[in-house]
Amino acid sequence: MTLPVTFDDVVAAAGRLNGVAHRTPVLTSTTADALAGAQLFFKAENLQRMGAFKFRGAYNAIASLDAESKRRGVLAFSSGNHAQAIALAGRLLGVAATIVMPSDAPAIKLAATRGYGAEVVTYDRMTEDREALARRLAEERGLALIPPFDHAAVIAGQGTAAKELFEDVGLLDYLFVCVGGGGLISGCALAAHALAPQCQVIGVEPEAGNDVQQSFGRGEIVKIPVPQTIADGAQTQAPGKLTFPIIRALVTDVQTVSDAALVEAMRFFAMRLKIVVEPTGCLAAAAVFARPPHIAGKRVGVLLSGGNVDPAMLARALA
Amino acid sequence: MTLPVTFDDVVAAAGRLNGVAHRTPVLTSTTADALAGAQLFFKAENLQRMGAFKFRGAYNAIASLDAESKRRGVLAFSSGNHAQAIALAGRLLGVAATIVMPSDAPAIKLAATRGYGAEVVTYDRMTEDREALARRLAEERGLALIPPFDHAAVIAGQGTAAKELFEDVGLLDYLFVCVGGGGLISGCALAAHALAPQCQVIGVEPEAGNDVQQSFGRGEIVKIPVPQTIADGAQTQAPGKLTFPIIRALVTDVQTVSDAALVEAMRFFAMRLKIVVEPTGCLAAAAVFARPPHIAGKRVGVLLSGGNVDPAMLARALA
Repeated sequence: MTLPVTFDDVVAAAGRLNGVAHRTPVLTSTTADALAGAQLFFKAENLQRMGAFKFRGAYNAIASLDAESKRRGVLAFSSGNHAQAIALAGRLLGVAATIVMPSDAPAIKLAATRGYGAEVVTYDRMTEDREALARRLAEERGLALIPPFDHAAVIAGQGTAAKELFEDVGLLDYLFVCVGGGGLISGCALAAHALAPQCQVIGVEPEAGNDVQQSFGRGEIVKIPVPQTIADGAQTQAPGKLTFPIIRALVTDVQTVSDAALVEAMRFFAMRLKIVVEPTGCLAAAAVFARPPHIAGKRVGVLLSGGNVDPAMLARALA
Repeated sequence: MTLPVTFDDVVAAAGRLNGVAHRTPVLTSTTADALAGAQLFFKAENLQRMGAFKFRGAYNAIASLDAESKRRGVLAFSSGNHAQAIALAGRLLGVAATIVMPSDAPAIKLAATRGYGAEVVTYDRMTEDREALARRLAEERGLALIPPFDHAAVIAGQGTAAKELFEDVGLLDYLFVCVGGGGLISGCALAAHALAPQCQVIGVEPEAGNDVQQSFGRGEIVKIPVPQTIADGAQTQAPGKLTFPIIRALVTDVQTVSDAALVEAMRFFAMRLKIVVEPTGCLAAAAVFARPPHIAGKRVGVLLSGGNVDPAMLARALA
């Protein structure tokens, strides 16, 4: 079986990210272990630059471009962590970044993206098609379009998170990873397959949007309506053409958790581990906190993907 | 000059804590650096076991007792982090811990302390004297009383936090540390003096209660009324008989910050660094976020002492 991305690509990405991305800590907690009935190792990508693992893939993708493409610049369309990741990576690499965002995006997100030095192009969500606009802009200006997950260098970059985890803690029985479009889990599964072949990689989606679980079950990409969930990083409609074959080949199972379990996990992290984890970042943890019998007593890696939560939402989770 | 605790004591404490206390991560943030105008290294003791550096001193103190004292047990009076630190350290070392707490202490704190396996003895704050009760109990039961800061093994244990910081990041120009009774800063100053002799150690107190600043200025211990501040770990009335001579000898300056600056820092940590830091834990950071001119461009260590904040208070800081 030939996969579209290899562990060698992850190793090359790690070389590019060395000294640029944070090597995020692995946190442990006896309280969390008691809750899950297992020995947990939390890879804290909420403590990554710009607050999420997305920085890894974005930086690796831009750094992998040829000189001429770097001179012209890059373009991304996103209203979430990928936009800020591309903006920050572009600034660090001296590559101009253009981000296509809805004109009614929260002012704080528009400002943050501009704050990283990106040019923000807004569009009207009611009358304009984002992807068509982005592709037209990219063509007119000769910009390299960097999609949020379905891109080999993005997948390879995300895999460096799991590579660091295995290097730091050794073998694991399970690795739980949140799933949106599948960029993070496919990169992490490549790392697990190479560094801990016995480790079972489990994907976790929000109950409201189990496109990857359905696709995994049917053996083909299933597209669903935009899911309504507080896990805004997992509001994807389908896995990608590159990520899905990697998930099929290397992931053991895909599970789901409720939004209520995400809120409970967010509160637990703030009050017990003293860290802020966004709802999407709580997906993997919420699955292990449900004490699935098969993880009892096992060594379990848990990917905390990000910490960019709206302060009002975090305040509500604490109340 | 002979000080009551030495760096050798800190090294011995580090040996006892090895593999028991978390070696907490050192966090960096370009956003925080821009705010302070300096290169900051945050020692994240909010991610320590039971959520605060206090575990280090408590564990070292109990582990340093002779076999007979361990068999009899230990006693502490505290309604804060020290109580939970003694309870947890006692459980880990198989030493019975008795904690004297006010009967009207928050139910959650009473439960947490009992949850660590300690015996909680309550008293009526209106009619009973806590210290007298604790000393009577200790005498009657033959328990070793472990005070929260004015104790050589406690000071030595706290100093291991700064020892790790210097080992991990090398020399620093400044180290900012919060000051309550002075246990943390005196231990950290011993480590700084040994490992980075040029490093200036700066203490930070709440504006409402500058007993150490006053004592430092006058050259003798000054006692003040119980200060009204949200920094509950710094509501001390005077530095200790052991901590004060170390502070006088090895600390450069003691500064103060307002409660409003603590709330602002708490919000900054949650939203930008994705960590939960309690008000007392924000003292050192709030001082550097005020951009004092002398730290411009310097390498500055910042001790984040703990993360045990009431959820409602954190929610208010976020609102």
